[in-house]
Amino acid sequence: MVKQKGLKKVGLPPGSLAYAGNEKKERVRIKVFYYDKNKFEERDVKSDEIRKFFPLKDRPGVTWINVNGVHDVRLIEEIGKNYGLHKLVLEDIVNTEQRPKANNFGDYLFIVLKMFSRKDKRIEVEQVSFVLGKNFVISFQEREGDVFDPVRERIRNEKSQIRGAGPDSLLHSLIDAIVDNYLVLLEKLGGEIEILEDALVSGKSKEALEEIHRLKIDLIRFRKAVWPWREAFSSIEMIDTPLLRKATRIYFRDVYENVIQAIDTIETYREMLSGMLEIYLTSASNRMNEIMKMLTIIATIFVPLTFITGIYGMNFANMPELRWYLGYPMILLFMLAIGISMLVYFRRRKWL
Amino acid sequence: MVKQKGLKKVGLPPGSLAYAGNEKKERVRIKVFYYDKNKFEERDVKSDEIRKFFPLKDRPGVTWINVNGVHDVRLIEEIGKNYGLHKLVLEDIVNTEQRPKANNFGDYLFIVLKMFSRKDKRIEVEQVSFVLGKNFVISFQEREGDVFDPVRERIRNEKSQIRGAGPDSLLHSLIDAIVDNYLVLLEKLGGEIEILEDALVSGKSKEALEEIHRLKIDLIRFRKAVWPWREAFSSIEMIDTPLLRKATRIYFRDVYENVIQAIDTIETYREMLSGMLEIYLTSASNRMNEIMKMLTIIATIFVPLTFITGIYGMNFANMPELRWYLGYPMILLFMLAIGISMLVYFRRRKWL
Amino acid sequence: MVKQKGLKKVGLPPGSLAYAGNEKKERVRIKVFYYDKNKFEERDVKSDEIRKFFPLKDRPGVTWINVNGVHDVRLIEEIGKNYGLHKLVLEDIVNTEQRPKANNFGDYLFIVLKMFSRKDKRIEVEQVSFVLGKNFVISFQEREGDVFDPVRERIRNEKSQIRGAGPDSLLHSLIDAIVDNYLVLLEKLGGEIEILEDALVSGKSKEALEEIHRLKIDLIRFRKAVWPWREAFSSIEMIDTPLLRKATRIYFRDVYENVIQAIDTIETYREMLSGMLEIYLTSASNRMNEIMKMLTIIATIFVPLTFITGIYGMNFANMPELRWYLGYPMILLFMLAIGISMLVYFRRRKWL
Amino acid sequence: MVKQKGLKKVGLPPGSLAYAGNEKKERVRIKVFYYDKNKFEERDVKSDEIRKFFPLKDRPGVTWINVNGVHDVRLIEEIGKNYGLHKLVLEDIVNTEQRPKANNFGDYLFIVLKMFSRKDKRIEVEQVSFVLGKNFVISFQEREGDVFDPVRERIRNEKSQIRGAGPDSLLHSLIDAIVDNYLVLLEKLGGEIEILEDALVSGKSKEALEEIHRLKIDLIRFRKAVWPWREAFSSIEMIDTPLLRKATRIYFRDVYENVIQAIDTIETYREMLSGMLEIYLTSASNRMNEIMKMLTIIATIFVPLTFITGIYGMNFANMPELRWYLGYPMILLFMLAIGISMLVYFRRRKWL
Amino acid sequence: MVKQKGLKKVGLPPGSLAYAGNEKKERVRIKVFYYDKNKFEERDVKSDEIRKFFPLKDRPGVTWINVNGVHDVRLIEEIGKNYGLHKLVLEDIVNTEQRPKANNFGDYLFIVLKMFSRKDKRIEVEQVSFVLGKNFVISFQEREGDVFDPVRERIRNEKSQIRGAGPDSLLHSLIDAIVDNYLVLLEKLGGEIEILEDALVSGKSKEALEEIHRLKIDLIRFRKAVWPWREAFSSIEMIDTPLLRKATRIYFRDVYENVIQAIDTIETYREMLSGMLEIYLTSASNRMNEIMKMLTIIATIFVPLTFITGIYGMNFANMPELRWYLGYPMILLFMLAIGISMLVYFRRRKWL
Repeated sequence: MVKQKGLKKVGLPPGSLAYAGNEKKERVRIKVFYYDKNKFEERDVKSDEIRKFFPLKDRPGVTWINVNGVHDVRLIEEIGKNYGLHKLVLEDIVNTEQRPKANNFGDYLFIVLKMFSRKDKRIEVEQVSFVLGKNFVISFQEREGDVFDPVRERIRNEKSQIRGAGPDSLLHSLIDAIVDNYLVLLEKLGGEIEILEDALVSGKSKEALEEIHRLKIDLIRFRKAVWPWREAFSSIEMIDTPLLRKATRIYFRDVYENVIQAIDTIETYREMLSGMLEIYLTSASNRMNEIMKMLTIIATIFVPLTFITGIYGMNFANMPELRWYLGYPMILLFMLAIGISMLVYFRRRKWL
Repeated sequence: MVKQKGLKKVGLPPGSLAYAGNEKKERVRIKVFYYDKNKFEERDVKSDEIRKFFPLKDRPGVTWINVNGVHDVRLIEEIGKNYGLHKLVLEDIVNTEQRPKANNFGDYLFIVLKMFSRKDKRIEVEQVSFVLGKNFVISFQEREGDVFDPVRERIRNEKSQIRGAGPDSLLHSLIDAIVDNYLVLLEKLGGEIEILEDALVSGKSKEALEEIHRLKIDLIRFRKAVWPWREAFSSIEMIDTPLLRKATRIYFRDVYENVIQAIDTIETYREMLSGMLEIYLTSASNRMNEIMKMLTIIATIFVPLTFITGIYGMNFANMPELRWYLGYPMILLFMLAIGISMLVYFRRRKWL
Repeated sequence: MVKQKGLKKVGLPPGSLAYAGNEKKERVRIKVFYYDKNKFEERDVKSDEIRKFFPLKDRPGVTWINVNGVHDVRLIEEIGKNYGLHKLVLEDIVNTEQRPKANNFGDYLFIVLKMFSRKDKRIEVEQVSFVLGKNFVISFQEREGDVFDPVRERIRNEKSQIRGAGPDSLLHSLIDAIVDNYLVLLEKLGGEIEILEDALVSGKSKEALEEIHRLKIDLIRFRKAVWPWREAFSSIEMIDTPLLRKATRIYFRDVYENVIQAIDTIETYREMLSGMLEIYLTSASNRMNEIMKMLTIIATIFVPLTFITGIYGMNFANMPELRWYLGYPMILLFMLAIGISMLVYFRRRKWL
Repeated sequence: MVKQKGLKKVGLPPGSLAYAGNEKKERVRIKVFYYDKNKFEERDVKSDEIRKFFPLKDRPGVTWINVNGVHDVRLIEEIGKNYGLHKLVLEDIVNTEQRPKANNFGDYLFIVLKMFSRKDKRIEVEQVSFVLGKNFVISFQEREGDVFDPVRERIRNEKSQIRGAGPDSLLHSLIDAIVDNYLVLLEKLGGEIEILEDALVSGKSKEALEEIHRLKIDLIRFRKAVWPWREAFSSIEMIDTPLLRKATRIYFRDVYENVIQAIDTIETYREMLSGMLEIYLTSASNRMNEIMKMLTIIATIFVPLTFITGIYGMNFANMPELRWYLGYPMILLFMLAIGISMLVYFRRRKWL
Repeated sequence: MVKQKGLKKVGLPPGSLAYAGNEKKERVRIKVFYYDKNKFEERDVKSDEIRKFFPLKDRPGVTWINVNGVHDVRLIEEIGKNYGLHKLVLEDIVNTEQRPKANNFGDYLFIVLKMFSRKDKRIEVEQVSFVLGKNFVISFQEREGDVFDPVRERIRNEKSQIRGAGPDSLLHSLIDAIVDNYLVLLEKLGGEIEILEDALVSGKSKEALEEIHRLKIDLIRFRKAVWPWREAFSSIEMIDTPLLRKATRIYFRDVYENVIQAIDTIETYREMLSGMLEIYLTSASNRMNEIMKMLTIIATIFVPLTFITGIYGMNFANMPELRWYLGYPMILLFMLAIGISMLVYFRRRKWL
């Protein structure tokens, strides 16, 4: 019952599950929140205890199950069976190379997104999947560590609005946290681009090329992950489902606008980087030209002069000039005159 | 109740307010206009007195509240509560990194735009938000200084048409002033581009590269701010709201056409700058080629000749030529012949 | 009542008129044609006599009022008042930086176009506006001189079809004349591009770079003026107005197709120019390479040889070779051998 | 009654005819096919006899009139009058700079296409117009010579399917022949591109630049002629006319798919050519670098050494080294050491 | 009855068959699967025995006929006749230059795709056509060897789900296998790109240019084959046919998403390759600059010094310096001073 996407999957039956990332041995850690206006429970759950929390599905209030790790295929299947998820949904959760998307399955909404984090100046991408049901949200991440902590804090806070709101509101908060993180990362990238630009303009561009390339690749990967949201989110707005209440849809439109803003910013940065590369290349070639000019000036002055010294260094028996009393100073003056007229010529041609 | 967009916001509840710009301490200055065909009042209001002017909302005539500064979150919230604005609207007003847009909230229209100003040859962007209600317009700017003074003059003028028109007409005048300012700035940019082009063609291109880059970045930022208007304004025309009377909509179409004109002009300028960069690079490399040719010609003439002088500068005991009576003039003639034939060769190859 | 677009307008009331071009003092010259199948009148009218011709509006037959010059704002306003034109229409007529467009105002159609002329190898753009009413056409040009003379000839000709047709047919003839002029200009540009290409291929490319740049800029401006027609004209076809009879609409479709053809041609020319720039740059760099090869070959042959002569030009007391009887010819042969083997090496490396 | 498109037409009444190509004197040659399942007639007709064949229009069976040459305006007008063609149709037939298109005139369909032929490695374009009526097809070509011979053969063949089919089937066969010819030409171009690529990779790229440019221009022109088919043919499918039977429409869809295939191929070739140009430029600059390295290595080794020989070639009276017994071999060794250490340095820097 | 596409076909009747690839003589090998929940048959069939299996069409259960080779036109025609396939379908099967597409013929669906394989680092494309009928799937490949083996295994396995599902499920499995293979190939390409990038960054870029070019061409061809799927598959979803059950359509949407994912990845790779080419070119030109600097520094130091030695190598009778006791050491010091000041100058200019 194991299907492998990527290198291992080809031709196996569709809808069977196989983790597509690197082999992992760690236990999957699950966190369950169960709350309504008055109650609040929070539990860390091991993967083999998850079954105990399934009855929550049928109780009023909101249940949020957050699964850290999608390499435990059996666990995903069990959750899928209990919540009535389609086999393709489970396959998409497990296969971490999905495109961001939002699909409506009637009973539940299925949303796939990318979450970014930044380590050592490189952007790392992680897939997050959400299932929104009548009174639950299930979220699947590739590994521990996310941008959801402020949402958790708000759930814990009895007075927070989210406690009285439905699961669609929780879903929005989670997605909003991810998108806000995009904007934060983009702001950081923007700062780096500005620093790089200043460095370029002031000529301190030692490793500029590698920097520009690194930022470019980051932006390409960023865009690849964000671009499909355009469709995905405009389709969220249009989905005909009672799972999203009208009041919440306005908030989703807001998220959509932030995504578009992020895409605009990415495009702007890309254009700025292109402009910077042009500057880099042009100023490099300008410096080169300067150097070549130097060489040319030195050579065109001294090569002819050296030729003249060569003439009078010849050992012909019969070279009358050599015996002239003023031969030496005259030839020196002659060479000086040539040198100066060369310099004047260069000045006229604006090479100096 | 404070939410921070940008670096500080991630994960906080949506719809809470936080100013996203640099910390500011100044008092927010508010200007209230209240007028109809016959009456006219104008007041400078401090942020803690704003409450006194809220009853104007329910009186006939047009009220225009202009808020200079969006960093006083409490003030924004108070206005929002009194005028029944959605929490997301307040969030968008305070977050100055919004994309231009026009949203219909039934009771009121919410519009976000970018206003440009030019300082020291750099374009500065400022966000302006408008709320259009049944008989009021509220405008929010990031800082003092705007392009609305002529509109203010017209309101003060008893005979001006605007005095008899509704708030939608006021809104149009304000937006029109912003868009006209775009066209003015673009005209200035166009002038600079033309000057730069002339400088390039006449070869006086000392700092051309930096200039081109600066203009390019300006145009990229300009475009980012103007491009989304396309959608925003075509949607204004289609919004099903009684707040915009039919007669005013024609004026909004006119604004839309001006925006499209601005976008066309931006694209044209961008293409012209690309062309100019090509010219710059090509003429730089042409000058380089000229210099290299110089070097090559000098070197290819004199290096062989110097070699010949080297031969006859050798100290071999047995070099018969050295003792020939005409050895020296003969070798001089020989070298002259070589030099001339080189020059002829270069001419034939069109290097001279 | 004067509104200034461009540098002077910002913030003044919309719909007020101001000429946007350079100050002008000349009298505006107006030409009125009044004709039907049998009658025909033609008058040159001064701007203060125009009022006398307003009654023509209500008589059967077609009236064509051609206004040469839009800087007399008072005249435009008077015409506007008599023909019931919207204030924005008058503003658009006077502001010569409009985008081509076609607007339906119910009683009349308003169309803005660009007319080109060519002076000293540069393309000049002039804005032409048309108002089509039930039995009249009013056309506004920036200055005297246009492409309408053949149309005038046809109106004067009693047997011409146009005499029996309505004002929509006249409008079509005028627009058709403008578009045909586009195609003529494009054909000329095409001819110049071909000549330039031949010059490039045959190596006579002295001023090719400036030529390419000039043509590029012309095409960019051309495209800016023609591109918006796409929309404008497809909307003409769809306009729900009795002013355009069905039979005439087919002719407008024909004009539309010609415009599309013009746009196609512009794009093709742009791509050809890009290709030519590539050729120019590449052949310039090829010639450069050839020169550098020359330099390298000369230098790499003679620099080592000169070194050898240098050795035997040293004045050491104890240099046995110098005293060998065959020292000199041997060293000459040795140097010859080095030179030849160098040449062989270059041949092998395909540098020669 | 003569209207001139292109350079000669401007401002003349629309719908009047004028040949737009180069002046031609030859007689127009016409070929008439008249056939049904059983009958078959084929006639070469002179332009003044065409009138005799007009009655065929009203007889059952299919008539195909193929007109070779569109410069005989009188002939075109006569045909137009007899077959009830719109004046604009006649104008489009005569004006050979039309964009490919398909127009429905109710009684007949009018289709304009481009036919290619290849002479001396250059692509030549010829306009072909088709009029499809209830029981006839009229085709107009610019000159003799076409790709229709196999269709003619099939008509002559009594057993061929086309004999029993309607005029829409004939039209399809003719268009199909044109499109198949596109694919053939593209295949040839593809072959040339492959040969060129092999030549580039193996370094035999003498005239590669001209070749690449020629192919590029060909593809640009090809695309200009084929691209508009997209629209034209998708509109054929949607045209609401009984002239195209349902069974034939499937064949037109097939033609449409072939056209899209051709466009795809053109785009692919264009990208491949761009890649090849990059290769060409890069390998040219690589070869250049190699040469420059050579020069640099030779110069940096021998210039300092020559300087040393220069020192000991000086004629100072008091130069003790010159008199040392081992002075000469020591200096030789010293120079050898410098040369070798230079080489080692170059090796380390990976210049060798 | 033979029609030739490509070079041989022009003008022959549409819908006649001709193999478009290279001449082939091998027997076409056919494999027939016939199965339902309980039964299972598998047969290797020679092309002349295929007739025996036609009755399977009318039996319940699923028949899968896989034809390896489309050069046996007679066989294709026979199958076509028996299964009621349109002549154009047969033509498309035989012509292996088709664009991917999905056409609905009412009784059956016809789908054309491209299957990739990789040999010696080059991507090879093979056309696969599918016909889906009420209870059969016929697949046509160009040659033996495919990615369907896992599907075959699943059919052989009695417990596999596919045994109970309809022919649409089989079709999906086959297509899914092809698309999964795309993703595998893309992953491999991605790996190669990463290796290449590392090589570029670490400077080991011997054959980088050829590698980049090869990958680029592969991606261009890949995209050409995959891009049309966008349309083809979105149209599959919308096709109004009972042949695709609703449950299967969800799986086709999944395939569609994978295709979009593949296209995204291709675009990303293309951009990364462009970036790498930039890096390659820039670092090549940087290395070049370094070399030129070396040359310039050496030359500008030693050329003037050599000139000085030249002066004192002249043989003038009257050169007082030559006889100074400290002349030699003084000139050596002077030259040293010049050399050092040159080096200082270079350091200041940051050339060293």
